[in-house]
Amino acid sequence: MSTPSSRLRNVLGHLLPLSNADAPPHHFSHLSPTFFLERAAAIEPNAEAVYHVTANGKVLRRSYMELADRARGLAYYLRKKGLKRVGLLAPNTPAFLESIYGIVAAGGVIVPANIRLKPEDISYIFDFAEVDAIIVDKEYENLLDLFRASHPQVEIIIDLDTDATSGALSGPFDDAVLEGLQHDRATGNKGWSDLQSQTVPNEDDMLAIPFTSGTTSKPKGVIYTHRGAYLAAVANVVESGLNLPSGRCKYLWTLPMFHAVGWTFPWAVCAVRGTHVCLRKVDYPLIWRLLKEEGVTHFNAAPTVNTLLCSAKEAEVLPRPVRVTVAASPPTAHLFEQMTNLNLFPVHVYGLTETYGPITRGYMLPEWEALPANEKFAKMARQGHGFLTSLPVRVIKPEQGEAGILIDVAKDGKEIGEIVFSGNICSKGYYKDPEATKKLFAGGVLHSGDLAVWHPDGSIQIQDRAKDIIISGGENISSVALESMLVEHPDVLEAGVVAVPDSHWGERPKAYLTVKEGREGALKGEEVIDWAKHQSSISKFMVPREVEIVRELPKTSTGKIKKNVLREWAKKGTPGDVVA
Amino acid sequence: MSTPSSRLRNVLGHLLPLSNADAPPHHFSHLSPTFFLERAAAIEPNAEAVYHVTANGKVLRRSYMELADRARGLAYYLRKKGLKRVGLLAPNTPAFLESIYGIVAAGGVIVPANIRLKPEDISYIFDFAEVDAIIVDKEYENLLDLFRASHPQVEIIIDLDTDATSGALSGPFDDAVLEGLQHDRATGNKGWSDLQSQTVPNEDDMLAIPFTSGTTSKPKGVIYTHRGAYLAAVANVVESGLNLPSGRCKYLWTLPMFHAVGWTFPWAVCAVRGTHVCLRKVDYPLIWRLLKEEGVTHFNAAPTVNTLLCSAKEAEVLPRPVRVTVAASPPTAHLFEQMTNLNLFPVHVYGLTETYGPITRGYMLPEWEALPANEKFAKMARQGHGFLTSLPVRVIKPEQGEAGILIDVAKDGKEIGEIVFSGNICSKGYYKDPEATKKLFAGGVLHSGDLAVWHPDGSIQIQDRAKDIIISGGENISSVALESMLVEHPDVLEAGVVAVPDSHWGERPKAYLTVKEGREGALKGEEVIDWAKHQSSISKFMVPREVEIVRELPKTSTGKIKKNVLREWAKKGTPGDVVA
Repeated sequence: MSTPSSRLRNVLGHLLPLSNADAPPHHFSHLSPTFFLERAAAIEPNAEAVYHVTANGKVLRRSYMELADRARGLAYYLRKKGLKRVGLLAPNTPAFLESIYGIVAAGGVIVPANIRLKPEDISYIFDFAEVDAIIVDKEYENLLDLFRASHPQVEIIIDLDTDATSGALSGPFDDAVLEGLQHDRATGNKGWSDLQSQTVPNEDDMLAIPFTSGTTSKPKGVIYTHRGAYLAAVANVVESGLNLPSGRCKYLWTLPMFHAVGWTFPWAVCAVRGTHVCLRKVDYPLIWRLLKEEGVTHFNAAPTVNTLLCSAKEAEVLPRPVRVTVAASPPTAHLFEQMTNLNLFPVHVYGLTETYGPITRGYMLPEWEALPANEKFAKMARQGHGFLTSLPVRVIKPEQGEAGILIDVAKDGKEIGEIVFSGNICSKGYYKDPEATKKLFAGGVLHSGDLAVWHPDGSIQIQDRAKDIIISGGENISSVALESMLVEHPDVLEAGVVAVPDSHWGERPKAYLTVKEGREGALKGEEVIDWAKHQSSISKFMVPREVEIVRELPKTSTGKIKKNVLREWAKKGTPGDVVA
Repeated sequence: MSTPSSRLRNVLGHLLPLSNADAPPHHFSHLSPTFFLERAAAIEPNAEAVYHVTANGKVLRRSYMELADRARGLAYYLRKKGLKRVGLLAPNTPAFLESIYGIVAAGGVIVPANIRLKPEDISYIFDFAEVDAIIVDKEYENLLDLFRASHPQVEIIIDLDTDATSGALSGPFDDAVLEGLQHDRATGNKGWSDLQSQTVPNEDDMLAIPFTSGTTSKPKGVIYTHRGAYLAAVANVVESGLNLPSGRCKYLWTLPMFHAVGWTFPWAVCAVRGTHVCLRKVDYPLIWRLLKEEGVTHFNAAPTVNTLLCSAKEAEVLPRPVRVTVAASPPTAHLFEQMTNLNLFPVHVYGLTETYGPITRGYMLPEWEALPANEKFAKMARQGHGFLTSLPVRVIKPEQGEAGILIDVAKDGKEIGEIVFSGNICSKGYYKDPEATKKLFAGGVLHSGDLAVWHPDGSIQIQDRAKDIIISGGENISSVALESMLVEHPDVLEAGVVAVPDSHWGERPKAYLTVKEGREGALKGEEVIDWAKHQSSISKFMVPREVEIVRELPKTSTGKIKKNVLREWAKKGTPGDVVA
């Protein structure tokens, strides 16, 4: 048995033979994804790095050389000013992308905040993360009023998101970039060689603190490291196939960059010198135009975004397959069928902010092609297996074995347990919250809080969030399974199911539905209940006895249905937008 | 300035907060490519892992479940017997592949030896690497006679390379696999969980000692680590595009697995659950059959193999593009044009045994498509830029600056310097040879010994091995440039150029050529000299004044022309196979 000190020597063996303890050994360099931008600009300076329609409606195109130069300018500006912890409050703009690289290259830490949060929550996040500067998009500047009043010392850098390169319009963000570039020129013109790109002090250091959505409590800051972000980004290249056999991927930014640092795609796309097609907001006609005219090859989006995309009036079968990486809430088999019919080829992944976004993938097996369509799409809707650079995902029983040993559920597709993760795509923990970190890693694995079954083929399938499962007469009812069944109804667009108290059964399921365009008012809740009784995919006891049809479902910024709001509706009555 | 101990604390910060110093922190796992096989078998147990024509002419197909089971059996066998350092002497067989996984899973180290070496050299390698067992293919058993005589204690495990699963034929290797599987069953049936796959003690530990070809001195053992092999394999997935958009890659084993552990492709192919199409020897009619009938999608091969493949009588334009990763000696623009015409799409890489095989790639830029063919293929023949998981490659001046600082050559496509590497795809050094390791990493970078120019676009281009450059009248003449020019002649198949002493100029170039099938005896050396005088790609002073046409050029097992043999010919006279 090794002692702690011999163990340390062993683990760090490569560092010890050095005469200069400040340098890593010659065969070792600390992993950091910031290098992907410097590298892309060195290999293909003229490749198109950014396509964007600016806030003032101009089409902006930037090369990798320009993107790298602007990120470098920002880095020198921040370093000159001594700014190390930088908040970001912006939609998916070029400035956001430049900041992800510039802040880290300056040795700083990115703190992105969700632009759809209340000013109180945004203020909480930036205060908690102790930012010393904030880069904010002009449109969202007013969300900072509260924070600014109490933190006058924090520098606010406003981005106008206009095409500064074309002439007249420019703003404080562009000025900062320019000032940084001038500073570099005036201090030896060292370029990237003097920034943290090829070398960082330690790959286990923090480079970002994205926050969880915090639907039930205060948002939590999640610690991302250079090593974790690097390995997650490389896995995303392989799993989403961003390295096209020929040509360059064109990645459309429907997923918010503020959400889990865009699932590490700001780094993954630059790793293969792809084009970032930025997008200020999810605008379905614009997305369809970009899909048809700009040759988009990939995008990532939550199931709700894909549902609305498929039902948009601009939807048509695309000439070439576009790879759509889908996650955030469990997608239905029905959605995958709709998408596939439009040549939107789904790559189904699953993960949490705590796992750099995606960490599992539903791998399509060639033999599935021979299955009936409903079986094939049902298999595609499973969450699958751990990513290439992760360790395997597991589903464990709620109770532990002897000496705290975690016990896997049976791989029978029936026993429900909790999904847990291990390996390098697990975040380092919660910022300034050792208690929550301890709970997150209870038993030595990262707890997802999601309930799932484990199928005989080793793929996992989410049943529910632990808090969303409905326990009725001692039976577990998966709200996800009910929602998947309800959207099979020809008139139903979306479904959200929650538990309501029941004096006899303890709980019973209640469903909220939206209907497809043109069918408003034509569908009654009772009809859906009658129809559900004849569906073979659920047991009789699962049929919801209450179905309300509403104009819109409450959703988070990432497209998840807000179950807590639905529970409020069930308790206090639905607001005045019930349509049937 | 940090002290060594504070520095260690900093670098290893993540290890220190643990109560149990024997376990890595929860968000960290040591990288090891052995896990790729366990993972592949878990995701797609029935996927075809191996296709092979055995030594007795049977077609063998094995699933990922079978490949993983057999590797696991070997691991338990080796562990039971206490065998930790295992030599491998075999062509590209399934047993070789199983051994790469099984030996490392048992916590051991792979020592592959080149099957084309003399018994003395093989004996030297296995003795120097201190192997305690050798897995040998029956056909090559006699090469071990010398070693066995002096090392009777070393266990020899013979593989018959017959299809043991089909019944009657089986041999010691299959028996060992079976014994290991029985041992696992008898001792708790722990499967992969008790092997070193998901967890290894330290990612910086050695997992293989491949040897350099040693044309000028004794072969040197190169230390490969888990981390290095992992990051090189993942880069090869991305750079060679083994992750196809749909379906599974079929990788043909033309490159020897004993050479730099097959450039890490034994791991890269399993990372994406591809099929290994094994191959006992480079047999051009068989390769063409596999390309046409078995749906091969990728292979790797030296330029000489590609030259002979393109000139084989079975050559025809393939229906779909096959990606051919080309390296080992600088390919010519002429070869790339020939390959492209057959739908053999080249991915041009470059590296050394000391860099896990490939570490640079010539990235095709979209704008090259608009260039005249000769310019386009000339650009493709450059060595390009550092791999995704490497740091940038550099070309440095022979003389150092102040305080030993390395100085880059000008990026002008003219100044010649030495190619050097940095980052994680550099091996750890030479086994039991600190002096050679020190020289390899002189100045803190890995020295290639290859001379190159650096182009204004940042791509590097090999001119020659340092020892192969011809210095004539004070001018450097690149033997590679001369060879590239000579193969443009319509009758010439291959060319090898060396320096011969010249009383006036110091040295002068001499060329040895082979001619295309059907043109033997039709071409005279003088005609080639006359033709060369009119080629614009070289300067007048470079025209070789001696050209000999020979039946065959001497080559290493990896397809490099043996320049030392050509120099011997030049000194002592060419053997009796001169044809003109």
